[in-house]
Amino acid sequence: MKMKEKLAETIRWYHQKGWSPATSTNYSFVEDGQIWVSRSGVDKSNFNATDFIPIDENGMVQAPYQDIKPSDETMIHVLIYRLFPEAKVILHSHSKNPVLISLRHEHVFSVENYELQKGFSGVKTHACKLQIPIFENAQDMTYFEQWIPKRKQEIQQHCFLIRQHGTYAWGENLFAAKRHLETLDYLCECELVR
Amino acid sequence: MKMKEKLAETIRWYHQKGWSPATSTNYSFVEDGQIWVSRSGVDKSNFNATDFIPIDENGMVQAPYQDIKPSDETMIHVLIYRLFPEAKVILHSHSKNPVLISLRHEHVFSVENYELQKGFSGVKTHACKLQIPIFENAQDMTYFEQWIPKRKQEIQQHCFLIRQHGTYAWGENLFAAKRHLETLDYLCECELVR
Amino acid sequence: MKMKEKLAETIRWYHQKGWSPATSTNYSFVEDGQIWVSRSGVDKSNFNATDFIPIDENGMVQAPYQDIKPSDETMIHVLIYRLFPEAKVILHSHSKNPVLISLRHEHVFSVENYELQKGFSGVKTHACKLQIPIFENAQDMTYFEQWIPKRKQEIQQHCFLIRQHGTYAWGENLFAAKRHLETLDYLCECELVR
Amino acid sequence: MKMKEKLAETIRWYHQKGWSPATSTNYSFVEDGQIWVSRSGVDKSNFNATDFIPIDENGMVQAPYQDIKPSDETMIHVLIYRLFPEAKVILHSHSKNPVLISLRHEHVFSVENYELQKGFSGVKTHACKLQIPIFENAQDMTYFEQWIPKRKQEIQQHCFLIRQHGTYAWGENLFAAKRHLETLDYLCECELVR
Repeated sequence: MKMKEKLAETIRWYHQKGWSPATSTNYSFVEDGQIWVSRSGVDKSNFNATDFIPIDENGMVQAPYQDIKPSDETMIHVLIYRLFPEAKVILHSHSKNPVLISLRHEHVFSVENYELQKGFSGVKTHACKLQIPIFENAQDMTYFEQWIPKRKQEIQQHCFLIRQHGTYAWGENLFAAKRHLETLDYLCECELVR
Repeated sequence: MKMKEKLAETIRWYHQKGWSPATSTNYSFVEDGQIWVSRSGVDKSNFNATDFIPIDENGMVQAPYQDIKPSDETMIHVLIYRLFPEAKVILHSHSKNPVLISLRHEHVFSVENYELQKGFSGVKTHACKLQIPIFENAQDMTYFEQWIPKRKQEIQQHCFLIRQHGTYAWGENLFAAKRHLETLDYLCECELVR
Repeated sequence: MKMKEKLAETIRWYHQKGWSPATSTNYSFVEDGQIWVSRSGVDKSNFNATDFIPIDENGMVQAPYQDIKPSDETMIHVLIYRLFPEAKVILHSHSKNPVLISLRHEHVFSVENYELQKGFSGVKTHACKLQIPIFENAQDMTYFEQWIPKRKQEIQQHCFLIRQHGTYAWGENLFAAKRHLETLDYLCECELVR
Repeated sequence: MKMKEKLAETIRWYHQKGWSPATSTNYSFVEDGQIWVSRSGVDKSNFNATDFIPIDENGMVQAPYQDIKPSDETMIHVLIYRLFPEAKVILHSHSKNPVLISLRHEHVFSVENYELQKGFSGVKTHACKLQIPIFENAQDMTYFEQWIPKRKQEIQQHCFLIRQHGTYAWGENLFAAKRHLETLDYLCECELVR
């Protein structure tokens, strides 16, 4: 199966889990140097391979797709690809667990001693404390253009939260990106119910 | 796919989500000036395109369907179409989230700063406070005939709650109506667990 | 579809909802005066029409099925058919909601003002208080033989709870029995989270 | 259906329930004296019969599979087969319920009076108190090599918990192992919400 189809399948599965209510969330991947991002306003239960559109490294939609609106948050994807060269797939979720966790913490979501922390690439043991940055929410993308680079050193687990909004997670391939997103969601849910 | 079939598919999906236990809930749409409403007492796991019946603008079932019972709450649908001309599809849910939220608030469900508030047509930013009216429950439809028009100005987000009963949401098409219903449910769940 | 198949389909659906973990729960129906009950120890994800066995009015398995073990709780089914002649289908659930509710109430689960109370046959308005009996749990079926008849007058909604065990609900057909079971579960969940 | 296929189907089902996020969890079975264990790092939504690899009684992968990495926790499987000769299938889950329960109890998860306790082989009544051991989590398998044998007498219900990690459960066949795992999860969830 091709990348577009595999990612579209993941998107529909996450919709079924309740992670993308009401046409929300967005997704992207890089293939042969080209960034493809989900177009805006699609009900994710029906998302198909043809719902990806190509953008350049500044987020501009490329011919012949200029008339199609990309996700409003395309700039966040562009920033992640710019700052984290290993990223090849980016997933965004509106799952309630991180949204609710973001209401209980200030700048960082801290978590320790869960086996599943090993779901993050590079983490080899549960016996450590991880800190996932929480950004404020903003409609103005210049907020993220300023703050994601500024806090880059804090972003150690291939993901971050946006307050009352959701999560972004990425990886060197779809497999890794999914693992990071699902790990983060699981840890948020555990700490929420704890 | 035709409107009847698309809406029937949505109804079965909402049933699977647990939003219409025990034959509850009802649905309608307008096509070519004709209102079609779900008939009464159908198990929503099996709802089909043929389970819609035509009613006139006063809620009277039209020939040759006179012997089929429409939903008990047909009058609520009629009122919504009368007061909100943009409405072409109306969805009703018995999801537990708004039912429980209605036990914790008096006249209005208030919510602010969630990204998903943008799921409501016309809302462009998370940075605002939305207020969704809560009506009392009533078996006598004259209650709704009196109070929905009276509180019309408060109904800004294409939806409202009925206490210990559920939600109504609508839109200019199925896509918008779904977005409004799912947005409302998500916001209720977040505030419930918060 | 025949009764056996329709009920088997319902059983598989309830399993998917998590209502029959670990081979638990049991089901029965009456057809042409014959009681059929689910045999013991079947994983409900795989329950088939052939997993029903015929019993007589005292719960004895009938030829040529004598070597197959019926559910341990066959006697509860027999008692319900004896006391409530309108019952033609009996459903049992181990859903966690009523199990947890039974830990918070003494002899009765009381609930009022929910629209979904109308899911019980005969209830015409939300504006009433319903009381569902809770029985103690017992392995010895003589407990139920004594207490279900003794508390018969309290059983007004075609269902009851057994403490830390689950629910029984029945109806004049599968449709009604499902409606009663799902209504009870929904009301238990609402009161649990409330 | 063969054992490999039946177990793979169970693994995919548990993934859908959210019990194996982010490639976590592992599984094994014994057939004709040979132990087969799940290989490492597979997304459990796609787990197939071919994802099992043979190991010897010390956990060493056998020819011609030497280049494939077995689960990191293969040694736990080996220990269980060594100590509990009736075990023929071992299931591991990262379900949040036992993970959260392990944060609320010291050395043992105690539970009493639930009907579903009968889901454990040998338990004939709800009227008893069961104690399920909780082990500390460790990346170093020598911890388990020391402590599982030491606490063997406490392991009466064919299962145990690992703190902030998950559960192991086993049985004389897949049917029994599933029953034990699902029973434990259900009891954890009940006590969590209680």
